[in-house]
Amino acid sequence: MRVFSRVAIVGLGLIGGSVAAAIQKRKLASHVVAYDQLGGGLDLAVKRGIIDSAAPSITEAVSGADLVLIAVPVLTIETILREIPPDVLITDVGSVKQHVIDACETVYGVVPKTMVPGHPIAGSEKHGVAAANADLFEHHKVILTPNADTDAESLERVRSLWQDLGATVVEMSVSHHDEVLAQTSHLPHLLAYALVDTLSAQGDSMEVFQYAAGGFRDFSRIAASDPVMWRDIFQANGPAVIASLDRFLTELGDIRELIIAGDTAGLEAALQRAKAARDHFSKLNDHRD
Amino acid sequence: MRVFSRVAIVGLGLIGGSVAAAIQKRKLASHVVAYDQLGGGLDLAVKRGIIDSAAPSITEAVSGADLVLIAVPVLTIETILREIPPDVLITDVGSVKQHVIDACETVYGVVPKTMVPGHPIAGSEKHGVAAANADLFEHHKVILTPNADTDAESLERVRSLWQDLGATVVEMSVSHHDEVLAQTSHLPHLLAYALVDTLSAQGDSMEVFQYAAGGFRDFSRIAASDPVMWRDIFQANGPAVIASLDRFLTELGDIRELIIAGDTAGLEAALQRAKAARDHFSKLNDHRD
Repeated sequence: MRVFSRVAIVGLGLIGGSVAAAIQKRKLASHVVAYDQLGGGLDLAVKRGIIDSAAPSITEAVSGADLVLIAVPVLTIETILREIPPDVLITDVGSVKQHVIDACETVYGVVPKTMVPGHPIAGSEKHGVAAANADLFEHHKVILTPNADTDAESLERVRSLWQDLGATVVEMSVSHHDEVLAQTSHLPHLLAYALVDTLSAQGDSMEVFQYAAGGFRDFSRIAASDPVMWRDIFQANGPAVIASLDRFLTELGDIRELIIAGDTAGLEAALQRAKAARDHFSKLNDHRD
Repeated sequence: MRVFSRVAIVGLGLIGGSVAAAIQKRKLASHVVAYDQLGGGLDLAVKRGIIDSAAPSITEAVSGADLVLIAVPVLTIETILREIPPDVLITDVGSVKQHVIDACETVYGVVPKTMVPGHPIAGSEKHGVAAANADLFEHHKVILTPNADTDAESLERVRSLWQDLGATVVEMSVSHHDEVLAQTSHLPHLLAYALVDTLSAQGDSMEVFQYAAGGFRDFSRIAASDPVMWRDIFQANGPAVIASLDRFLTELGDIRELIIAGDTAGLEAALQRAKAARDHFSKLNDHRD
């Protein structure tokens, strides 16, 4: 059962904390140690048994570790990598893989063979280790983006870890990951932030929010996500986010024109098309819908 | 307990069916009769006890009724009103109140004193009477938009009905309702349809949808809502929807510029502002969040 002797988590927020809790629950490591720039969560995590010990520095956390998991906002990763030797098994959970690759190249000259970039498609508008959930990854997808030089055993160990935590692991290229996520995650978050910001700028915004129901209520919830994490994602994946935003703006502009023109047939056709796509997707995934 | 002797529901979809089921469950009427243009759901509704009988025409449904509830797509309401005498207690559930007022004036010359326009802020991407839910309105708001001439007793009877079904009733003006709903319901639905349509137009759209998680999953679900109902809402509330869309587009354009300019401080400030608004709203409404 004890697959790892010492797992070091760098960045103990929702995701880092949930990985730690999930490893502990399944007894996959003899020792889980964590470092976090903001010390506060570490004490709580030790108290709750989410980690075995807190380290006062990254160097001390990763010393002797046979797995280092980095779970910090994307733009912070380069600073973190500078403290980690390239010959240890490293993985991360960043939402923009090209930025992680670039950071590796800046720090190490190449992507270390023992670095397996990863991204669990799981999250919540909650953040901080207090929201850690040992079952967060069950029935969720985890995307790994290894390259041709990635050490096979390293890849296998990271893959097995996520599978042990209940996730389904898929591999794809860095660029494909960043494009797909721009569409399914980054753009929707951008829209949610913009929508909530628009509504809150209205005269009596609290009155407006009172009449939010159903889908908007769910949607606006993602605007409660960590602003620093999302600032980093929008910035690090800028070109793909802007490209997908611009496609959306074109579509939205078309629908706007249909409404202004009173083109009920054209408007209904657009809505039917969206519904058909969503229904089709829903059928393919009905275990989660 | 039997507050009404005969309730006639015109349009037996999700909302009409849920009102019928809610009335039956609470034994508020001696008889519930329904008419629907598409006969299919009526048989099912009789079989399940959601209604007591199906009427072959609107005239027969409303004959002898002491309450008529109209629950059809907004643009259909004028046709329906032509079959209903103005001296019976009428209410509706339409999402655009000005259009209902206009339809009344076209058909009757004035809004009948016994007409109490209403709108339950409850719904689902499900539709059709098969999805009827007797508890759909519990802990939800219902907005009524009476005018100065509305008969006090009629208003009181409609208010009591919704309260008996578990809803909280609030009154507001027609124009205020239409503006608020444009922002909290109509615009978000428009964005969801446009987003799903944009993604489904991509190369391998089904692959893209597979990586949809969390907030987007919830949000895209509202694009599965009834396209005819929503076409009617966008059209009937056109000016308010376009005004609120344009405010949103301005905000979105600002955020787009911040990303392109690499203005991380400005970007973070916008996201923080949205999060603060959402968190504040969430605290005020934490029984439902």
